[in-house]
Amino acid sequence: MKKVLLIGIGAGNPDYVTIQAVKGLNSVDVFFFLDKGQEKEDLANLRRTICERFIEDPSYRIVEVPGPVRDQSGDYKSGVHAWHHDKAEIFSSLITDELQDGEVGAFLVWGDPSLYDSTLRVIDQILAHGALAFEYEIIPGITSVQALAAEHKIALNPIGEPVHITTGRLILEGLPEKVDTAVVMLDNGSGLRALIDEDVEIFWGAYLGTPDQILISGKLKECVSAIEAARAEERQRKGWIMDTYLLRRAPKP
Amino acid sequence: MKKVLLIGIGAGNPDYVTIQAVKGLNSVDVFFFLDKGQEKEDLANLRRTICERFIEDPSYRIVEVPGPVRDQSGDYKSGVHAWHHDKAEIFSSLITDELQDGEVGAFLVWGDPSLYDSTLRVIDQILAHGALAFEYEIIPGITSVQALAAEHKIALNPIGEPVHITTGRLILEGLPEKVDTAVVMLDNGSGLRALIDEDVEIFWGAYLGTPDQILISGKLKECVSAIEAARAEERQRKGWIMDTYLLRRAPKP
Repeated sequence: MKKVLLIGIGAGNPDYVTIQAVKGLNSVDVFFFLDKGQEKEDLANLRRTICERFIEDPSYRIVEVPGPVRDQSGDYKSGVHAWHHDKAEIFSSLITDELQDGEVGAFLVWGDPSLYDSTLRVIDQILAHGALAFEYEIIPGITSVQALAAEHKIALNPIGEPVHITTGRLILEGLPEKVDTAVVMLDNGSGLRALIDEDVEIFWGAYLGTPDQILISGKLKECVSAIEAARAEERQRKGWIMDTYLLRRAPKP
Repeated sequence: MKKVLLIGIGAGNPDYVTIQAVKGLNSVDVFFFLDKGQEKEDLANLRRTICERFIEDPSYRIVEVPGPVRDQSGDYKSGVHAWHHDKAEIFSSLITDELQDGEVGAFLVWGDPSLYDSTLRVIDQILAHGALAFEYEIIPGITSVQALAAEHKIALNPIGEPVHITTGRLILEGLPEKVDTAVVMLDNGSGLRALIDEDVEIFWGAYLGTPDQILISGKLKECVSAIEAARAEERQRKGWIMDTYLLRRAPKP
């Protein structure tokens, strides 16, 4: 039987990996890296740093293939489904061709495999299809949401209230009723001004956990321009940006 | 200057601690344990296991004091505020009396200090009061939400949809509009049947990450009785229970 690990490696800081992840890393024969686009080199380097720092026996293999590109032209969910389908074909080939019986393969997932990551869904899709059989396990990791809260020294939830984690696309529709705090992920920048007319605080972070980390916080109205400027500048400098933010409505008097 | 670390130690499995937490643990002179009630011994033992397993120099001290008890008779938030006030008094005494200048003290927080934990708020309250000055840092940890998802091998979010983390008290009011998935924490069991009349799946876990871990999943209607029976049995056997669950509405046809 082949085995596949989905290892959450945390959000940027190699020290975010857990002991469980370190033990997992040390059991792996083959790592599959599927990075893409401009961030490819930086991200692949971080993955390599994690392997080099935490794996004792350097006889593991790394198989690096280009990840598929998501078609962003049509409907969002159809684009995602097609992208997962493409990924499933690549993963299937990797597991078939690069992993021997009795070996352990691994995908290193930024943050946590349960939060806005496709790896688990793609694995489920392959197993549901039935042509391939393998065991798999999931190892949780520190998300950028947690890194954001720790670095800003804030709690995610107001006392007794919910935590709402949403996307840049959804925040454009506003917050659901009775929700006064939201963490926004996967935003291309357009969600930053979604609540600009309300009395809202923002806690923003980019490249969280890395030496390039940037933190900005304050009244949304007063600091949104600084955040947009930082986003533009960093995109130009590094070629890619990874950011997350928490929006918090001022408590009603 | 004194320094205080709020170290997220993850949800039950000692292997959930991160390398950052291990480094933090090794810098600590004094650990403050404030457990209470029936789970006191089990939880203090887990904290002790983590210290013993990951700290190289055993010259650290542990100061154990009873945590205050939250008054559950009146309004929820007033009860929490009074409880935080009591905690602030205890923390202030500990930091004043048990921590010398230049030393590092630490609170070991289950899960992550940013999610449904009072330690950070209490520390902020002490610093805002102004009578005591110290540095502090937060180290994120794996939450029971992440342990739940990893052990059930599920994603927290449907594709492109939000993740809503809420409480047993709030789930009784139903889910907010446009929210079809919610993780419920801090439930005394009464929230389990909140969505019983809807077409909902549940992924339930107790003592996640520990050798006592129990997982139950399926249609809520079909497995709620088994979950309630497991809760009752475990409460009797161990004297306390820690559980979390995810509710997911069936996709609309």
